[in-house]
Parts: sequence; C-alpha cells; structure tokens
Amino acid sequence: MLTAARAAFAERGFDGASIRAIATSAGVDPALVHHYFGSKDQLFLAAIEAPANPAEFLPEVLAGGRDELGGNVVRMLLRVWDGPMQPAALALVRSAVGNEWTAKLLREFLVSQVLRRVVATLDAPPAEREARGALVASQLIGLVVARYVLRVEPLASAAPEELVAAIGPTVQRYLTGEVELPGR
Amino acid sequence: MLTAARAAFAERGFDGASIRAIATSAGVDPALVHHYFGSKDQLFLAAIEAPANPAEFLPEVLAGGRDELGGNVVRMLLRVWDGPMQPAALALVRSAVGNEWTAKLLREFLVSQVLRRVVATLDAPPAEREARGALVASQLIGLVVARYVLRVEPLASAAPEELVAAIGPTVQRYLTGEVELPGR
Repeated sequence: MLTAARAAFAERGFDGASIRAIATSAGVDPALVHHYFGSKDQLFLAAIEAPANPAEFLPEVLAGGRDELGGNVVRMLLRVWDGPMQPAALALVRSAVGNEWTAKLLREFLVSQVLRRVVATLDAPPAEREARGALVASQLIGLVVARYVLRVEPLASAAPEELVAAIGPTVQRYLTGEVELPGR
Repeated sequence: MLTAARAAFAERGFDGASIRAIATSAGVDPALVHHYFGSKDQLFLAAIEAPANPAEFLPEVLAGGRDELGGNVVRMLLRVWDGPMQPAALALVRSAVGNEWTAKLLREFLVSQVLRRVVATLDAPPAEREARGALVASQLIGLVVARYVLRVEPLASAAPEELVAAIGPTVQRYLTGEVELPGR
C-alpha cells in the first residue's frame, strides 16, 4: 500500500492521487486503506515517512493571528528542527535533494501539508496564496539548508529567537506585505 | 595536488588552509602550486570543480551600487543558474547536501568567494558583515533549492525578473536594511 501510495503521490501529486487508485494499484479494497490510514493526509504522511505531522503543530502557529504569522512560522520550524526529529528531517531533505522522486514527494508535503494551511488563513485568491506560500518556502528551505546542512555561521549557532527576529519579518512580508508576486 | 587541497580546505576552511601546507602534503614545491594555480582562490575553485568563478561576474553585481545590490545579486544568481552551468551547479549542491565534506567545501566557497565579496562593499564591522552575508545566503540557497531542485511553483517557472522583484527586496534588507542580526 505504501509503495503504491509513494508512486501515486510522486507521479500525480497530492491533489491528483486518489485513495481509490492507490488501493487498486496495491490490489486491495479502498475501505482497507481508509481503515488503516484514515485520510489521504495520513496515508501521505505515512508514505513519505514524515518525521512530523504538521496538522499537530500548525494550529499553534496560526493561533497568534495574521500579524504574528511570520515570526511564529520561523519559531515552529526551528522548534521542530532543533528537536529530536532533526535526524529524520535531515535524512528527508538529503534524500529529496539527491533524488528527483523524493524531491517531488517533499514538494508535495511542503505545499499540501504546510504552506497551504498557513496561507489558507490569508484573505487572498488562490494564485496569490500559492505565490506567497512559495516565497515563504524559499526562505524557510534556505534557512534549514544554511543552518543545519551547510552550517553557515552565525546562523548555525544562533539562538532560535535571534533567527525569529532576523528572518520572521521576511516571512511576514511574503505572507501579508506588499510583494510583486511571481506568476501573475 | 587537488586531492590535498580538497582535504585541507574541508578540514581547515578557506582561511585556515595554506598553499605551503597543501604543497607539503602533496609532496611538491609550493612554487609549483603557484605556477599551476596562481592564487589560493584559483586553487580552491579548481579543487571544488566550481562551475563558475565569482570573481568574474561579481564586479558587475557590485557596480550598480549599494541600493541596487539586493536585486542585482538575485539577478546574477538566476543568470548563472538558468545558463549552461546549471547541471554542474546542481551536481555541486546535490553532492553538498548528501555529503558533509562537500557541504564544508560549498560553505567555504559561498562564504569566501561570494558573500565576503558582496558584503565587503558595506560600511560595517566584520561581525555585522558576516551576519548579513549569512542571511543573504539563507535566502539565495532557498531560492535555488525551491526553484531548481524541488521545483515549487510558481517559483520554478517564473521569469527571472519576477523573482528579482519579489526576492530582491529581502536580500537588500539583509544587506543594508534594519535587521536584528544574529550572533551579536
């Protein structure tokens, strides 16, 4: 089931993959997939061996309101990455950068499980939300790679709140500020 | 010589590695290293098989002046990455993310050959220049990974000037704007 799910999510994306089609290709009943995994979100997280379930910690990020969103997103990212999930998260990023298939799965994870939920709180049309989410992704991915993979100083040894103060305003601008958005 | 150079740059960093020590460990005369490579910069670029020599294109980036620096840095990054060097540059990034040794070399490349030259034009103390350079790195690395590796839309298919307009102001703020800098 998980092999069929990985193939479907990588080939058709999160939106294009259906539980029905995944069940068919795995030779099982769709009800069984629902029984084991509950939702497509859950199946997807299991298929990519996600080190964390964004649905669990995003409500806290969003609770601070629109104007705190930038800093809160950076704070939560660092809490996950500075915690016990770091090795698994690092393994996922390494694999995604080295392998086109995993890259597609990580992109789908970021877009469908993280960014879309963050930008859903914005009062903006879908194309604008997508562009703002992608800009946020560009800053967060770079923070992760610079701090945890390349270990560029002073980012690598900075305290989380220092990075929230420096980078939070960038994320806030991408989310709610005046930006000339690409693709529009 | 290049093997000895790679080991020295990865272990001791660009600043800590000396041509004399590299020559000794390769069992050759330092004059020979100078003869073949000219400078430590050149030896380093050869050792990491750098797809481009930043010394060649950075003068153009810097010529626009301080207030244009953010947009010009993004524009040049995209020109290099959208050009014929993309496969080699992508291979270097993939290798750096997958391998700690190459990660150190890529970090030294970014810091010593790119960021230091960009922030050298700022009228600021060294620790501030280092912090501003690292923040710039976090945004540029993320742009590269989001656009070329994970192919997050609309970044992946945006025209370069759209990305200059959206992301240039972030880089400009990191370089010359009011930022609470980490590590100070």
